[in-house]
Amino acid sequence: MLRPLITLTTDFGRADHFVAVMKAVILSLCPKAAIVDISHETPAFDITEGAFILAEAYRWFPKKTIHVAVIDPGVGAARRPILLEAAGQYFLAPDNGLLTLVCRREKHRAREVASERFFLKPVSQTFHGRDVFAPCAAHLANGTPPGRFGKLINDHFRLFIPEPAQTGKRVWTGAVLKIDRFGNLITNFPFEEFQRISARPFEMAVGMEKVTRLARNYAEGATGEVFLIAGSSGYLEVAANQASAAKLLGCGVGAPAELTIW
Amino acid sequence: MLRPLITLTTDFGRADHFVAVMKAVILSLCPKAAIVDISHETPAFDITEGAFILAEAYRWFPKKTIHVAVIDPGVGAARRPILLEAAGQYFLAPDNGLLTLVCRREKHRAREVASERFFLKPVSQTFHGRDVFAPCAAHLANGTPPGRFGKLINDHFRLFIPEPAQTGKRVWTGAVLKIDRFGNLITNFPFEEFQRISARPFEMAVGMEKVTRLARNYAEGATGEVFLIAGSSGYLEVAANQASAAKLLGCGVGAPAELTIW
Amino acid sequence: MLRPLITLTTDFGRADHFVAVMKAVILSLCPKAAIVDISHETPAFDITEGAFILAEAYRWFPKKTIHVAVIDPGVGAARRPILLEAAGQYFLAPDNGLLTLVCRREKHRAREVASERFFLKPVSQTFHGRDVFAPCAAHLANGTPPGRFGKLINDHFRLFIPEPAQTGKRVWTGAVLKIDRFGNLITNFPFEEFQRISARPFEMAVGMEKVTRLARNYAEGATGEVFLIAGSSGYLEVAANQASAAKLLGCGVGAPAELTIW
Repeated sequence: MLRPLITLTTDFGRADHFVAVMKAVILSLCPKAAIVDISHETPAFDITEGAFILAEAYRWFPKKTIHVAVIDPGVGAARRPILLEAAGQYFLAPDNGLLTLVCRREKHRAREVASERFFLKPVSQTFHGRDVFAPCAAHLANGTPPGRFGKLINDHFRLFIPEPAQTGKRVWTGAVLKIDRFGNLITNFPFEEFQRISARPFEMAVGMEKVTRLARNYAEGATGEVFLIAGSSGYLEVAANQASAAKLLGCGVGAPAELTIW
Repeated sequence: MLRPLITLTTDFGRADHFVAVMKAVILSLCPKAAIVDISHETPAFDITEGAFILAEAYRWFPKKTIHVAVIDPGVGAARRPILLEAAGQYFLAPDNGLLTLVCRREKHRAREVASERFFLKPVSQTFHGRDVFAPCAAHLANGTPPGRFGKLINDHFRLFIPEPAQTGKRVWTGAVLKIDRFGNLITNFPFEEFQRISARPFEMAVGMEKVTRLARNYAEGATGEVFLIAGSSGYLEVAANQASAAKLLGCGVGAPAELTIW
Repeated sequence: MLRPLITLTTDFGRADHFVAVMKAVILSLCPKAAIVDISHETPAFDITEGAFILAEAYRWFPKKTIHVAVIDPGVGAARRPILLEAAGQYFLAPDNGLLTLVCRREKHRAREVASERFFLKPVSQTFHGRDVFAPCAAHLANGTPPGRFGKLINDHFRLFIPEPAQTGKRVWTGAVLKIDRFGNLITNFPFEEFQRISARPFEMAVGMEKVTRLARNYAEGATGEVFLIAGSSGYLEVAANQASAAKLLGCGVGAPAELTIW
């Protein structure tokens, strides 16, 4: 019999006890669960970054995986916990937009998690990761059907996460979605939709630079050169060879990226 | 049959090989163990912070969990390794005060770990996490009874970790125990003992500020406002809404917190 | 039946989705695998540091452990993936020198990993951790014999990682291999070969300091004193008591260490 698989995505960091406490609650209720950390290092309160990381990770997990995501500045206030079924997997998160990209990509059903019998009591005002999300994940892993957690809803919250828009005859304006550990700027241009840059002259203006070359791999780049690459997430990335493109260009998440194709 | 559960709390960081080596030793001796990291990111040599994090985490783990804590500036010198039984769980640590808060909260029995037959040989002078604590945890997980590790002792070392003291007719003086990733200042005032601040005017002087409001959740706070909250650890916390109270107040661990209740 | 054990050593950091995606791929193909992180925090592109950390960790793992190491600035370019059998364990890595120290220490057989049927398709140009190394590790864990991955090779790449050389009648010149989290400078002097410094006067010149004492443990050191110690890796380390020797000496990885023994 397979172990249920539960993932965690939070902004709790790894220095404090918070992540371990969530794991303790899960393993107390569902001792056979296997738990995988996706990330606990997103900047504090950065729901957009969390949404991106979770969206990049979930699709590689097997069916029935239970993803718990807790970046939750509104904890204890009015926002609801939700349970999403999408891509044959489950997602538990506060209803604050963390699941926006999963919802954009996948057919899904959302529920408000309202059945307090699955919560730890008393529910604290500041740590629903421990009191709400971890125990619900464990109960789901133990076989509780999704319908038992609460009613279907349609008005779950979506973040505005921009997609590239055509802003001129030959011009599309997009943005930097994420900077990874290596300083690669992951843009919101899906490579599949812009594949023609492989065959035609183009220019991407980002930060102080105009990037005009699409490389096949990092090692192709000359020292100090900034180039585009078809990234592993499916997006165009602005990259450099063994250097941080983000530092070379001096720009960060949200910076505009303007693509002109001739 | 359940997997034995072993947790690790160290100041080893995650960049070096030390934590993985401890896991390798455990899994070599007890292949079915499940290992959970509590924290490896406490400041180097900071026994008090380790004691706090472990004390916040252990109570959420199931009975029979084996907690291994290694913040150990005295490694190789005279300090003994100890094994504590408390709350139906086990704790292995150097006898340097790391288990102070567990001992304060729980009825417990302590033993000196003296049976060298459970150690890896030769025992190094600098890495008892690998040579002493990891193998003892694995043997315990495999069912070796605690009595086989060594004799009961009563003189295990306790750190001085302060509790709030009444220092005036309406005044209690406590301290900041811990700053979490979000910049919340966790004080040593147990909310349960000071619940009356929910109903009466009060003032907590900490750093440069006097805090006079108890909020129910972070989202209630105005921008830049510093307030008190009943934290998830059971202590009063000085917090801010999506901002670091520690930065706003310019103070750190050990800072005095003076509570006046009218 | 035992769970197959797979370790991961990368320079991916823990903030992004990369490590979790590798785990997702492994667990999708081999759900019963236990995965242990060795380190994901080596400096980006630092193959030498990765080689050191892996070499320090692998020997403590049980037979048949599968080590996956991905520090891979040449990803997508000409370098091959390789599979090494050594010490009864398996090692998957790009052929860029990451396995240099394993090869130096152990009798081994190396293969080029050429059988694309074990890869995820399409293979990206930038994330072979996901598309090549993780799935190959899972297939190996599932029992695919090493010979199925590709042919034996003898020309796998080795890094130059220096060993101490005798450079005078009483003088050996070595180097700092690694600085650990505590600021200890791990040199490349194997204690076993230089044990006579326990009994004879010596001097190690490193950074701005001449170190003349071999301590038995950290606690023996006076405040601000820098001393040698027989480190847990088997190398001589330059250390300080509850302080960073690296900061006290102002030197880093690669710094020369010159040992004179009278």
